Amino acid sequence: MKSYRKELHFNFPSRRGLQNITGEVQRAIEESGIKEGLVLINAMNITASVFINDDESGLHHDYEVWLEKLAPEKPYNQYNHNGYEDNADAHLKRTIMGRETVCAITGGKLDFGTWEQIFYFEFDGKRNKRVLIKVIGE
Amino acid sequence: MKSYRKELHFNFPSRRGLQNITGEVQRAIEESGIKEGLVLINAMNITASVFINDDESGLHHDYEVWLEKLAPEKPYNQYNHNGYEDNADAHLKRTIMGRETVCAITGGKLDFGTWEQIFYFEFDGKRNKRVLIKVIGE
Amino acid sequence: MKSYRKELHFNFPSRRGLQNITGEVQRAIEESGIKEGLVLINAMNITASVFINDDESGLHHDYEVWLEKLAPEKPYNQYNHNGYEDNADAHLKRTIMGRETVCAITGGKLDFGTWEQIFYFEFDGKRNKRVLIKVIGE
Repeated sequence: MKSYRKELHFNFPSRRGLQNITGEVQRAIEESGIKEGLVLINAMNITASVFINDDESGLHHDYEVWLEKLAPEKPYNQYNHNGYEDNADAHLKRTIMGRETVCAITGGKLDFGTWEQIFYFEFDGKRNKRVLIKVIGE
Repeated sequence: MKSYRKELHFNFPSRRGLQNITGEVQRAIEESGIKEGLVLINAMNITASVFINDDESGLHHDYEVWLEKLAPEKPYNQYNHNGYEDNADAHLKRTIMGRETVCAITGGKLDFGTWEQIFYFEFDGKRNKRVLIKVIGE
Repeated sequence: MKSYRKELHFNFPSRRGLQNITGEVQRAIEESGIKEGLVLINAMNITASVFINDDESGLHHDYEVWLEKLAPEKPYNQYNHNGYEDNADAHLKRTIMGRETVCAITGGKLDFGTWEQIFYFEFDGKRNKRVLIKVIGE
């Protein structure tokens, strides 16, 4: 069994934002030399998500509106976590969208359906954040 | 390390619906010959979910009502994604229920608690959809 | 490829509650002797979650309040599942928080960001419950 590890680094200029990281994950798989196996992609920070869905800007807007309805940013004092922080909503939004995804590798490629794309979703930006890619297989 | 890949195919007559796929996943594990490892089961379409819970029709009804409350199908024009589509709610519902599950294989079997069952949850049916099963181990 | 399996056992005195299990997962990894690989940690019961977030009591309170808003426990008769049961809300809350997490193992340790901690979240306590840890790698 082989394994390979890589980090992606982010520093978003805004509090929230999305980035398609599918190409970077595919590149890491190629660097690993692994043809059959699994790849784990997870946010290393607890106010960000990695998830799979469509690369369509209307949908990304809908996610922003929907998450803000399910876990509103303000008023900050509605959350006990916001004593010295103001990011409780970011923890909750990340919970809805998920910390990680696990994908299959077949023939050296992400084994994906037609519209599957991997995204990093930032909920508390303006600081350094990381994503871990771990590949295992043969 | 061994690996095995299999697809399941679906075409639901209705927009939404559930199907228990536990038996099919167990069958794929047996076909793989893998005794110890992990199995990934993921929707290959971005308007469907794979998740684990109880095979109880009352609960399945509760999921339908609950998801419709958290991410209503209508009015269609509340979502930016619904320019040429009407399935934005399906993307959101699938986000709540999840894209994938990863399960342990022990002694050639799904290593499950008493009530764990794997389901495919369709949110935008009346078309061909796929689920990927990827088994790795020895 | 090596693999290792371990169960954690719980019996919470209250209906809901959180427990940090990061140390127990790290211990299982050490027992496995695996240096590079993946570890799956999943609830074996369908009314409990395993998830990763901050070990901060204010946030844990916020989770309790937030989940109760998204999937209220009462009135019990709002859920079809609650014929002989009263735990439909526990199935829904667990769906939001997730069944499982998959983590990378690098150099024999959980490959984690600074604040990542693994929690067991009980939504229907006062009975015996289990978590499965499955480690694979080399």
